[in-house]
Amino acid sequence: MPGEFDFIRALRGRTPATPGVLIGPGDDCAVLLPPPGKLLVTTDLLTEGVDFLLAEASPEAVGRKAMGVNLSDIAAMAGTPFAAVVSFALPRDPPGMTTRELADRLDAGLREMAGRFGVAIVGGDTNTWDGGLVVSVTVLGHADRPVTRGGAKPGDIIFVTGALGGSLLGRHLDPTPRVREALALREFVDLHAMIDVSDGFAADLSHVLAESGCGAEIDADAVPVHPDAVARSRLTGRTPLDHALNDGEDFELIFTVSATDAAKLEGATVPVTRVGRVVAGPGLWLVAAGVRTALTPGGWVHDV
Amino acid sequence: MPGEFDFIRALRGRTPATPGVLIGPGDDCAVLLPPPGKLLVTTDLLTEGVDFLLAEASPEAVGRKAMGVNLSDIAAMAGTPFAAVVSFALPRDPPGMTTRELADRLDAGLREMAGRFGVAIVGGDTNTWDGGLVVSVTVLGHADRPVTRGGAKPGDIIFVTGALGGSLLGRHLDPTPRVREALALREFVDLHAMIDVSDGFAADLSHVLAESGCGAEIDADAVPVHPDAVARSRLTGRTPLDHALNDGEDFELIFTVSATDAAKLEGATVPVTRVGRVVAGPGLWLVAAGVRTALTPGGWVHDV
Repeated sequence: MPGEFDFIRALRGRTPATPGVLIGPGDDCAVLLPPPGKLLVTTDLLTEGVDFLLAEASPEAVGRKAMGVNLSDIAAMAGTPFAAVVSFALPRDPPGMTTRELADRLDAGLREMAGRFGVAIVGGDTNTWDGGLVVSVTVLGHADRPVTRGGAKPGDIIFVTGALGGSLLGRHLDPTPRVREALALREFVDLHAMIDVSDGFAADLSHVLAESGCGAEIDADAVPVHPDAVARSRLTGRTPLDHALNDGEDFELIFTVSATDAAKLEGATVPVTRVGRVVAGPGLWLVAAGVRTALTPGGWVHDV
Repeated sequence: MPGEFDFIRALRGRTPATPGVLIGPGDDCAVLLPPPGKLLVTTDLLTEGVDFLLAEASPEAVGRKAMGVNLSDIAAMAGTPFAAVVSFALPRDPPGMTTRELADRLDAGLREMAGRFGVAIVGGDTNTWDGGLVVSVTVLGHADRPVTRGGAKPGDIIFVTGALGGSLLGRHLDPTPRVREALALREFVDLHAMIDVSDGFAADLSHVLAESGCGAEIDADAVPVHPDAVARSRLTGRTPLDHALNDGEDFELIFTVSATDAAKLEGATVPVTRVGRVVAGPGLWLVAAGVRTALTPGGWVHDV
């Protein structure tokens, strides 16, 4: 973009000295001290019109979301994020501001979210083009024993952090990645399997079940329905439970633990909700008033 | 995109078991064993219409370039690349093919270039949108002693690998990142400063000089002019030397070593060309027939 080198110079000025970051932005590569444990890598790319509308979302919110969804992936492995690189494809004529202002405001949002979790932005790439806004973020983390999607066992109890549904009303732009919650839970219990809710509770739980070779029963009454899911249901005519089970981008964590560990979580300092259990054999089921019906991700869930 | 999960499944099938990669694509994060030495991170994002034209370049070439420019950044620190993540923003209606075909062919190009250098593609993010093609790649590498831009000293001799200029005729789409050359040179001499030629020889050397707090004199007769620079000059009316000094995307390496080490490089197995010397104080100069003129990056260089 015009003045790209100025922008990069500005970025360098904004990057505080961070332990473990030997060289930050401005050379061919960032140079980091390798962290303890295993190295985690995750990347997400957000596009205008799909993940956000610049006409509705502030550039700061887009920046926070772009960083937050990646931090949520690190949380889903019970990892500690430590560094990120960010790239922009910037429109030449963004609505109501200059390209440079857009870049600065995106950067402010990215930096705010990264700062909340002690993550250093160590590099990036800034481009201007004739298309819409694209923001790509890669986050590095570390973990002694990363929690995968594949470790759920029949008899495990399924939990979720927070409440679900209706994130489209605004929460999707302001995720709170459950990094601290995952690390706290990890100290407390043996997490068998974990995933964050990006595609939707039912869809993401299905990923866990597919990787673990198990099925699950979800208690309809136990699902924590967010007030936004109720608000959305008034607009869509779908049930609040349907929104809670199928809306995406809650960025809460779904995890499974043994029945013994489940008991320990009743008094945990991290608020979690027990929503169901892992069963042998394939299938995902919703249980309401003792009746079990198939729960199809993305399918229509009627009032129960 | 339609069938995105199919595509991701296909990617998983294409990812061979790699030492050091504990978990590849398909979980929330990739999980890697930390490599020896320091950790290098670099990222580059390529956009349609700026970095390539889909009407002219095959998707495989776009994929090779997107991976190659990142590998070139790892080479510029004398690092060894080992893992990459890749993200796409894919147009809904790419010219002459389906979105899925475009994704598969990009992936083939990325994988081909990564494979040449032993780099595992461990994750990514695939999106479809109403805009043009964007490819974002992040590469991780490792190095015991990374070579920065900031280590050039007055009296150093300046070298370049390969020949320069005219990459727009096609070489820019098919870079050969100088990873092996950098590692071989590193064994042979003490590399004081290094950078790869992406903005252009004069511009990139200026970055080294700015970081090192030095100036340089370049011998006009010594600059290795690529035949493509000659071909380009016939189209543009600019001199071949001008193209060699100012065209970008050669992806050769510029580096400086002591005069003692420079002598060792005369018989090196890695073909390099001595092009000038580092001097005290600021300034970049072109020396021709004993006459010194200021060399302005991006400026017009007349026949000398």
